[in-house]
Amino acid sequence: MRAEVRRFTMAHPGDVSALAAAIDRGEVTAASIVAIIGKTEGNGGVNDFTRGYFTQSLMLMLSGYLGEPAESLKARLPCVLSGGTEGVLSPHYVVFMRAPDAGDARPPAGRFALAVGTAFSDPLPAEAVGRAAQVRSVAQAVQAAMRDAGLVSASEVQFVQVKCPCVTSERAADALARGASLRTSNPGRSMAYARAAGAFGVALALGERTESDLDESAMLEDFSVQSSRASISSGVEVVSNEVIVLGNSSAWSGPLLVSCHVMQDALDIAGVTLALEGAGIHPSPQVSGVDRARIRGVFVKCEPDRRGRIAGNRHTMLDDTDIDAQRHIRGALGGLVSGVIGDNRIFVSGGAEHQGPDGGGLLAVVAER
Amino acid sequence: MRAEVRRFTMAHPGDVSALAAAIDRGEVTAASIVAIIGKTEGNGGVNDFTRGYFTQSLMLMLSGYLGEPAESLKARLPCVLSGGTEGVLSPHYVVFMRAPDAGDARPPAGRFALAVGTAFSDPLPAEAVGRAAQVRSVAQAVQAAMRDAGLVSASEVQFVQVKCPCVTSERAADALARGASLRTSNPGRSMAYARAAGAFGVALALGERTESDLDESAMLEDFSVQSSRASISSGVEVVSNEVIVLGNSSAWSGPLLVSCHVMQDALDIAGVTLALEGAGIHPSPQVSGVDRARIRGVFVKCEPDRRGRIAGNRHTMLDDTDIDAQRHIRGALGGLVSGVIGDNRIFVSGGAEHQGPDGGGLLAVVAER
Amino acid sequence: MRAEVRRFTMAHPGDVSALAAAIDRGEVTAASIVAIIGKTEGNGGVNDFTRGYFTQSLMLMLSGYLGEPAESLKARLPCVLSGGTEGVLSPHYVVFMRAPDAGDARPPAGRFALAVGTAFSDPLPAEAVGRAAQVRSVAQAVQAAMRDAGLVSASEVQFVQVKCPCVTSERAADALARGASLRTSNPGRSMAYARAAGAFGVALALGERTESDLDESAMLEDFSVQSSRASISSGVEVVSNEVIVLGNSSAWSGPLLVSCHVMQDALDIAGVTLALEGAGIHPSPQVSGVDRARIRGVFVKCEPDRRGRIAGNRHTMLDDTDIDAQRHIRGALGGLVSGVIGDNRIFVSGGAEHQGPDGGGLLAVVAER
Amino acid sequence: MRAEVRRFTMAHPGDVSALAAAIDRGEVTAASIVAIIGKTEGNGGVNDFTRGYFTQSLMLMLSGYLGEPAESLKARLPCVLSGGTEGVLSPHYVVFMRAPDAGDARPPAGRFALAVGTAFSDPLPAEAVGRAAQVRSVAQAVQAAMRDAGLVSASEVQFVQVKCPCVTSERAADALARGASLRTSNPGRSMAYARAAGAFGVALALGERTESDLDESAMLEDFSVQSSRASISSGVEVVSNEVIVLGNSSAWSGPLLVSCHVMQDALDIAGVTLALEGAGIHPSPQVSGVDRARIRGVFVKCEPDRRGRIAGNRHTMLDDTDIDAQRHIRGALGGLVSGVIGDNRIFVSGGAEHQGPDGGGLLAVVAER
Repeated sequence: MRAEVRRFTMAHPGDVSALAAAIDRGEVTAASIVAIIGKTEGNGGVNDFTRGYFTQSLMLMLSGYLGEPAESLKARLPCVLSGGTEGVLSPHYVVFMRAPDAGDARPPAGRFALAVGTAFSDPLPAEAVGRAAQVRSVAQAVQAAMRDAGLVSASEVQFVQVKCPCVTSERAADALARGASLRTSNPGRSMAYARAAGAFGVALALGERTESDLDESAMLEDFSVQSSRASISSGVEVVSNEVIVLGNSSAWSGPLLVSCHVMQDALDIAGVTLALEGAGIHPSPQVSGVDRARIRGVFVKCEPDRRGRIAGNRHTMLDDTDIDAQRHIRGALGGLVSGVIGDNRIFVSGGAEHQGPDGGGLLAVVAER
Repeated sequence: MRAEVRRFTMAHPGDVSALAAAIDRGEVTAASIVAIIGKTEGNGGVNDFTRGYFTQSLMLMLSGYLGEPAESLKARLPCVLSGGTEGVLSPHYVVFMRAPDAGDARPPAGRFALAVGTAFSDPLPAEAVGRAAQVRSVAQAVQAAMRDAGLVSASEVQFVQVKCPCVTSERAADALARGASLRTSNPGRSMAYARAAGAFGVALALGERTESDLDESAMLEDFSVQSSRASISSGVEVVSNEVIVLGNSSAWSGPLLVSCHVMQDALDIAGVTLALEGAGIHPSPQVSGVDRARIRGVFVKCEPDRRGRIAGNRHTMLDDTDIDAQRHIRGALGGLVSGVIGDNRIFVSGGAEHQGPDGGGLLAVVAER
Repeated sequence: MRAEVRRFTMAHPGDVSALAAAIDRGEVTAASIVAIIGKTEGNGGVNDFTRGYFTQSLMLMLSGYLGEPAESLKARLPCVLSGGTEGVLSPHYVVFMRAPDAGDARPPAGRFALAVGTAFSDPLPAEAVGRAAQVRSVAQAVQAAMRDAGLVSASEVQFVQVKCPCVTSERAADALARGASLRTSNPGRSMAYARAAGAFGVALALGERTESDLDESAMLEDFSVQSSRASISSGVEVVSNEVIVLGNSSAWSGPLLVSCHVMQDALDIAGVTLALEGAGIHPSPQVSGVDRARIRGVFVKCEPDRRGRIAGNRHTMLDDTDIDAQRHIRGALGGLVSGVIGDNRIFVSGGAEHQGPDGGGLLAVVAER
Repeated sequence: MRAEVRRFTMAHPGDVSALAAAIDRGEVTAASIVAIIGKTEGNGGVNDFTRGYFTQSLMLMLSGYLGEPAESLKARLPCVLSGGTEGVLSPHYVVFMRAPDAGDARPPAGRFALAVGTAFSDPLPAEAVGRAAQVRSVAQAVQAAMRDAGLVSASEVQFVQVKCPCVTSERAADALARGASLRTSNPGRSMAYARAAGAFGVALALGERTESDLDESAMLEDFSVQSSRASISSGVEVVSNEVIVLGNSSAWSGPLLVSCHVMQDALDIAGVTLALEGAGIHPSPQVSGVDRARIRGVFVKCEPDRRGRIAGNRHTMLDDTDIDAQRHIRGALGGLVSGVIGDNRIFVSGGAEHQGPDGGGLLAVVAER
C-alpha cells in the first residue's frame, strides 16, 4: 500500500471546491480517500456549526463522485474537524488517501513509509462515556485501525487521532430512562471526560500505560497519566469512537513519513523542532522554502495550563469572560508553530487533557522524506 | 548617566505592589523612574479601562513615595500601556529609570550603553490629529527626547515609543465650534490616523523619510511609507504626544543595550531572532536560561495583514465578528515571541500602521550585555 | 389566492426536520412554499455561516420533496436569514405559502387578507451597489413582487423584506478590471450601503419618497430619509435583489393579516403595541395566551443609536470591542418584544439604516384575524 | 430618619465627577452617604476590573471630602457593583443617603417611607463559603441591617442587596493549610455557592424559609428554595458579607418608597408591572414622563433558564462560546425593563440562583410616592 496526503484551503466552511477541482483534474481519486482532518473558522465550542456545515458539504460533493449516499460516506470516512482559526491560522483540510502499490514501489529494505489506518467502534452508549468501557472501546478501535494499516507493533505508530461521542441532553435522558447512571450529564463536562477516556484508550492500545494505571478516577484528576501520541476530540455529531492511526511501516511505500513529539508547555519551541527533525526537517529558525514544500500536514494539540501559570508567570486565559480559553491557546500555539514552519495551514486543537504533558501537548508532522 | 530597567508582574490591573515592594526594599529609587511601558489584561479597545485603572493606581502609589500629586506625576512620566494579554501573554510592566554615573562607571571607549529619554509635546488640538501638524509635533518631541537622552545622532536611536492623543466626541465638538475642520470625527478612525501621524513623525525625526514623503495623503493609504523604529499607540487619555526614546550611546554607562528589528510578516521568526542577536542573544531554538535572565524587556508591534493573507493563505482575523482583529494578532505574535524567548512577559501591541512592513511590524529587546 | 404562514423551530442550523415532518404529515405542501424568513444562532456578521448551512440544508430537503435541484430552488425562493439569537431569542423560521382559493373562500366585501408576493431583480453588478442603479433595481423588484401578490396600491403594502447583494473582494476586482468605479470596495461598508439603497428602493416603490429625495449622497448620511415599511439585509451569498412583499388585500382570502409600525427608539414599547393593535391584539401588559396562539410571525428591525445615547443616557454598544453592536441591540429588542408577546420566536435583525427612525426601527406582525 | 436616593451617570468607570459636582453644589452631603449600588461597563465576569476601578475612584473622591482614608470608607460603605451594560443599559450608580428628620417631617399616621440600613458581617473564612456558616452569617447581618434601619418586622423589608466573599486561590490554599475543607476550591463555582448561601441567609432572616429548608445540599440543586426579596452578588474583593436592606417604615419620613416583585421567567413583563404598581406607577405600556421623573432606582436580578428553554422554546445562551450567558440575559432583561420604564439607567445583575423563581428573578423600584 501507498499513502498519499494532500492539503487544501477553503474560502468558507461550505467550500470544498479545491478538492473537487483536484478530483476533476485527476490528481485525486475520490475512491482512494480514507480520512479527513481539518480546521474550520468557527469558535470551536458547542455552538460551532462550521464543522457540521463542512462535513455536510464534503460528503455531498464526494457522494456526487462516488455514487454512494452522503450518510453512508459519513459512517465510514472519519472526518475530524477542529473549529477556530484564531490568530494567523488558515482554514484548511488534510485529505488522507490509500492506493495499491505501483508494482515495484515497495521501499528498499530498511526504509519506512507513512501508513494510514482507520476504524469505527460500535456505537457507544451514554453511560460508557468517561468510563472504562469507553477506554476499552477506543483501545480496540485503535488496534483495529492498526490492523487496517498493517501496523504490527505499537512502536510503529506515531499519531492517533480519535473523535469520541459525548453525552447530549437527549442521550442522557434516554440512558436515565433505561436505568443507567452517567459519569456526568453536563454535555460540556462529558466532552472533557470523553477526551480523557480517548487518551487513556490510546495509551492502553499503544502500551504506554497498563490497564491498572488507567483507572476512571485518574481522568481529569491525575494529569501525569498521559499518552504522547494521542489527539482526541469529542463531539455531539458522532455516535462511535472514530479512529485514524498514522505510523511509519516497512510494509508501505511512497515518499511520506510521520513524526510526532510532545511539547512540555505552551512555549516549547524545542518540542516543535524535535517533531520536525523526526521528519528530517531542520528549521533555522524557520523551515526553508524547499523543506516547507515537503510538508503535507501539521497537527498540534494544546491546552491552557490549568495551574494558571506559564514559565512561572500568570496567564489570563482561564479567567477571560469574553474569549474562551481554548480560543486563546489555539491562537498562541498557532502563532508559534506557523512561525517556525513559515506556513499558517496548521491544525491546532485544544482540549489536550492527558494528551502530552499537562499545560503542553504534542505535535505531529506528515512530510516527504 | 546610567539607565536601569526592571520588569514587574501584577495580580490585576490595580496591583502595583511589586514595584512598591522593590522601592521598600531599596532596589528601586522612586525618584529615578522616568517612564513605564506595560501590558494590562483588558481587551485593548476603546472600552478597555484596565489602562486607566493601572495608571491611576501607579501614580497614586508613586505619589505616596514622592510627595508629588498623582496628577503632576501623570503629566511628566510617560506611562504607555497596551491592553490585551491574549494567549500566553502575562500582564506586566517595564520600569525605566535613570541615575547619575557611579563615578568611574562610564563604559570603556567604543562601548555603548542603553540611553533613555522622554518628552511631552504641547497639547495637540483635535484638528491637528492625523495631519502634518501632528507629524511635526511628534518629530519635535522625538528630537527633544533624544536631547534629553543625550543622543546626538538618529543612528544611535533604536526604538521610539509614542503615545498620541486622538479625537474624542467632546474634542470634535469643541473644534467644530471653533470653526476648525477635522481629518475625521470618528474616534476609532482618529486613533489610526494618530498612529499614522506618530509613525510619520518618528520617520521624520530619525531621517528615515523626508518631509516630502510624508504627505498626509499617504497616511493609512501608502504603507510603503514606514518607520522601522516606531511603536505608536493612541488613546483618549492623553492630550500631548508623549515620547520615550531608547538608544545606545557611548555617553551612557551600565550593562544594558537595546536592539530592534523589523518583522516582514506575522510569521517572521527570523526577524525576532535578528532583534535578539543585536543584543548578543542567540536562540537555538529557544533563548537559554542564562541569556533569558539578561532580558529586561521585549516590545513587539504587529498588525493583522490587511490584504487578508499570510504567506499566501487566507487568514480570518479581519472578518471575525466575535474577536477583534487586534486581539487575534496579539495572541499569535505573543505565542511566537514568547516561545522563542521562553518567557511570556512580552509587550505586544497591535495597530502597527506604518510601523515596520505592512502586515508585519517590529520588535525591540532591552537586555544586559 | 390564500396565504398560509407557519413557524418552526430548529435544534441547530442544519436542522430542517420540523418542516419536513409537517410536509410528511400533509400539513404543509412543499410546492406551495414561496419564501422563508428565519433566525439562526450565529453571530450575524461576515463570518456567520449558520445562514449558509441552514439554506443548504433547507434547499436539499425541499429538493427531495419537489424533485427540483437545490440550486434551482435557491434561485427562486427568497430565504432571508438573520444570524444571532442573542438573549432570550429562539432559532426559528417562518414559512410563507400560497394556495389557490378553496372555492368560496374569498373574504366578504370589505375584508382584507394577507397577500404575499416575491421577486428577484436581475443580477446586480458591484458598481451598482449603494448607487441609484441599486435603488431603481430594488424599486422595480418591489413593484414586481407587488404585482406577483396582486397588490395594486402601495397603501396595501405593510412590510417589504429585501435581501441585497454587496461588494466582495472578487466582485470588486472584477469591476475594477472592467474599468468600473465602486462606491466602496470595503465589503462591510458595502453591506451598509446596500441596505441603504434597499431602503431607498422600497421608499421609492411605495411612494414614501420621491426620486429627488433619494440622492446617493443621502445614503448613510441623512437618516431623516427613511422607509417605514422596509426591512433590508445584505449578504455575500446573493447576486440579485430578492424581495418579499407582505400586504393586506381584498383579493386574497384566508384568516391572516399583517400589521407594521415604526419604533422611535430602542425603548419604544408603544410602537410594539401599535403594531400588535394593527393586528387586533392588545397586550396588557403581555399578549394573552389566546391571542398569542394567533400570531404566526414577528419581524423586528433595529439599530444601536449612532449618536451614543438612548433616552438621553449614554449606551455602550458602539464602543464594545468584545461584543458587536448589532449583537447588543438584537438582544435588547429581542428581550423587549419577546416580553410583550410572551414568545421568544421573534425575528430581530440589526442594520436598520433608513428603515424606520434613526436609532429606532420597525416591527411587523403576521397574525390570524 | 429620612432617606434620600440619587442616581448619577458616568462617562467611564473611573468617572465619579457627577456625584462630586452634586456635593460641590450642596445637593448631596458626603457624610450622609451610606451605600452605593451601580452598574459599570465591564463584562461582569472574573476579569471585570471596572468594578475595582470605580470603587477606587469613588472612595478616593469621597476621602477628599470627608478627610477619612479611602480604605476606611471602603470598609464601612457597601458599594455593590454589577459589571456589564449590555444592550441599551447605561452605566450609572445609585447613591443611598440618610439624614435626620427635618423636624416636623415624620409621615402622617399610616404612611410609610423608605428605610435604608446597612451592615457588615465578620470576615468569613473560605471554608464557610457555600455552607450553613455563611447562611447564618448573612442572616445575622441582614438582621443587623434591619436594626440599623429601624425595621422591626420582616414584612417591612422589600429588598435586600448582599455582597458575599468567595473562595480565591490564595484563600483556598490558606484554608487547606489550616486543615479546613472547602465546599469547592474553584473560584467561579464558589461565587455561585456564595450567592446561594446569601439567598438562603436572606430567606432565613426574613422568615421566608425555616432553617430546616435551608440545607446545604439544596444549594444549586433545589431551586424551589428561594427568597423573593434577595439580590446577591459575590466577588473576590470583599472579605465580609456586606448588606443593604431597603424597606418601608412608618418610622421614616420623606417622599420615597420601595417596591419589589418576582419575575416568573425572563419574559415576565407582568412581574415588572406589578413591582412598579407597588410604587404607585402604572405603565401603559410605558411609564409616563411624569411618573418616570419620580423613579430613583430600578434593580433587576435575572438568570438564563438552566433548562435551556423559555416559554417552551430553546434559547441559546448556555451554549454560546463567544458571549457569556450572563451577558446575554442582562441584555435581554435590560431591554425589557428599560422599554417599560422608558429609561435605560437600570441595574440588571445576573447570577440569580435561589433569588426569585428559577429562570426568572425579581425587580425592585425606589420611587417618590
